[in-house]
Amino acid sequence: MIPSQQKSDPPDSPGSVGWTESATCRLFDEGNPFPLESGGFLSPVDMEYETYGQLNATRSNAILILHALSGDAHVAGWDRNWKKTGRSWRAQKPGWWDAMVGPGKPIDTRRFFVLCANVLGSCCGTTGPSSLNPKTGIPYGTRFPAVTVGDWVTLQARLLDVLGIQELFAVTGGSLGGQQALEWAMAFPDRVRRVLVLAASARLSVQGLAFNAVGRYSILQDPRFHGGDYYGEAQGPSSGLAAARMLAHITYLSEEGMHRKFGRRLNNRESPEFSFGTEFEVESYLDHQGRAFVKRFDANSYLYITRAMDYYDASEKWGGGDLVAACRRVRSQMMILSFASDWLYPPTHVRDLALALCRVGRPVTYVNVPSSTGHDAFLIETEAVGGLIRPFLECPESAL
Amino acid sequence: MIPSQQKSDPPDSPGSVGWTESATCRLFDEGNPFPLESGGFLSPVDMEYETYGQLNATRSNAILILHALSGDAHVAGWDRNWKKTGRSWRAQKPGWWDAMVGPGKPIDTRRFFVLCANVLGSCCGTTGPSSLNPKTGIPYGTRFPAVTVGDWVTLQARLLDVLGIQELFAVTGGSLGGQQALEWAMAFPDRVRRVLVLAASARLSVQGLAFNAVGRYSILQDPRFHGGDYYGEAQGPSSGLAAARMLAHITYLSEEGMHRKFGRRLNNRESPEFSFGTEFEVESYLDHQGRAFVKRFDANSYLYITRAMDYYDASEKWGGGDLVAACRRVRSQMMILSFASDWLYPPTHVRDLALALCRVGRPVTYVNVPSSTGHDAFLIETEAVGGLIRPFLECPESAL
Repeated sequence: MIPSQQKSDPPDSPGSVGWTESATCRLFDEGNPFPLESGGFLSPVDMEYETYGQLNATRSNAILILHALSGDAHVAGWDRNWKKTGRSWRAQKPGWWDAMVGPGKPIDTRRFFVLCANVLGSCCGTTGPSSLNPKTGIPYGTRFPAVTVGDWVTLQARLLDVLGIQELFAVTGGSLGGQQALEWAMAFPDRVRRVLVLAASARLSVQGLAFNAVGRYSILQDPRFHGGDYYGEAQGPSSGLAAARMLAHITYLSEEGMHRKFGRRLNNRESPEFSFGTEFEVESYLDHQGRAFVKRFDANSYLYITRAMDYYDASEKWGGGDLVAACRRVRSQMMILSFASDWLYPPTHVRDLALALCRVGRPVTYVNVPSSTGHDAFLIETEAVGGLIRPFLECPESAL
Repeated sequence: MIPSQQKSDPPDSPGSVGWTESATCRLFDEGNPFPLESGGFLSPVDMEYETYGQLNATRSNAILILHALSGDAHVAGWDRNWKKTGRSWRAQKPGWWDAMVGPGKPIDTRRFFVLCANVLGSCCGTTGPSSLNPKTGIPYGTRFPAVTVGDWVTLQARLLDVLGIQELFAVTGGSLGGQQALEWAMAFPDRVRRVLVLAASARLSVQGLAFNAVGRYSILQDPRFHGGDYYGEAQGPSSGLAAARMLAHITYLSEEGMHRKFGRRLNNRESPEFSFGTEFEVESYLDHQGRAFVKRFDANSYLYITRAMDYYDASEKWGGGDLVAACRRVRSQMMILSFASDWLYPPTHVRDLALALCRVGRPVTYVNVPSSTGHDAFLIETEAVGGLIRPFLECPESAL
């Protein structure tokens, strides 16, 4: 009943980047702590990342991919660590954008050196609230400092310094990843030639703020949250986190998409049971999403990352509230994609960003991709998205 | 910061129905238990209701108003019980549709005898899960039987029998109240002359099912829920119920309305605190809505009533899945109002109902009311709604 969100190739097929391995890089340490946008310093900062393809001799073919709220560095291919489980690759999961990244795919690893790093505050390899605080020897929990989209981009730039990459051929990402791509265009205008912002606007809508607030409320009120210090406990705030995920998942879909997928069909029965269980198919689907999420994600990370999503406002940060002024910073070739049925980052808000760029004469390609699959379209509509990304990346710069 | 959802008159003004008192009527008892649509019987069934205005000699001027999810029988005026608290009327709350019901108001109590009854399963006077089960001497909790929109309408008809009212001049309600109005048109086509359905379609959308599911999940997972037997406890599942209410509240508003009301403004500060508290105004608003709701509403009732909302499907019930066939049952003059920015009962779904009525030649007035205030528009846009309801009620039947 749960459809795959992307086509993917088996690890040994010509279209796959194959088995992948992640690396970790210490970007900041005690002698050189990381200065946070929220004030204060953090050390150490370890960043997990993956790369695919080869960096060319002029170090000019790097594409940085930025992940969304619950994503990680594993964009494409098949995680070698999962191979060790002895399960078949069919039972495993390829990277979250496997349909887009690989040999011959729209982000072509035969030509580009692709990298993706896990964000600060997450729970997928990079330092976050579940990391041990070296000063106390216990996990940070909610003593972890607030993180921002700006921090993430600063750390990604630092990682590039370490890897010896001065300039990116492109950055791209969807949703919260799209906001990082936009931040790249404004924070480091001279370090990136092409910027692709998918399903993201300059700031989250107030409705988006509201949904995040309810999700966090569910986590914070879960009695197993224990103020964020649940790591030693038998069970963390899994109910609260599941509720937050179920709610968020609704905002990733669209009424039309859900109607097509589930309608009002009952779950494996002809007539209602008159219970509070999973009577309808859509309830069973959400229940599954909640359960699956708590197995792989940390509730504290969910709090920190949704807050970063709330705070980000490119217009406020770079233009004192004037998006057009903020766009004056941009030097890159821009591609901006919205998705017709996306109501988390609605097309009208995304278009406002494209129009602001136009107003200051910045080169921008904007497409509102026809789609009925909601916000997740940036992951699902691989053919349409690939068909737009590929020519944007392949086109000579002079022709953009 | 929280704007009043309706204009209302002080209890002693000419536009107010003044101080009101509710009545309770035992509709079914042990010797004559109520047969439920979900199977089984329930007794006793006590129903709380309020009336305003006078029934005329021919008993032909009664208008039944049907309340939504969290509503009650107190539609208009000032509850006399609240007067007893000694607080000034300014600190109190008029009925939930006070702007619409009163002397000279669109539902004019100088002309009409208006009544409203609290639904079965609620916690505002009518028998519900918080009532004592006479067989056990303890509250029903989740042993209360499932209730349906059909049950509610059957009980309302029974109340009319008791009051000696064979035929209603009109029924009206918004949201879940609108679905009850529609059920009246189909279940008792010969007992109601005019039916006004506001902000409601023939069935809840799958997105609506999904939001209800997450709300119930929050309640059911609250460790203070105790399987529904929390009535003797110091604290019930207030966190779960608050989360459900906060979430539902977002679906009652619109992005545009929220943007106008709150935008992304911080709550009483210039720059973010970088906390998980109520940083943004919209968070403070939702927090208030959650807290206020748990003081007045029962979590078990919330479970039962949202389930009734899920199950209702006029098309399935009366037309075997064919809405046009279901509409053949209708004999009343119909007025159907949708609200342009309502995404809980979207205009396209409401219009489908109007079109189905048209297709079988039933007299229907359909208006998609321009409004940016979302689903709650049926409560907020009193001028537009009043301007449509008044002529529909005043017009001679021959002219409709």
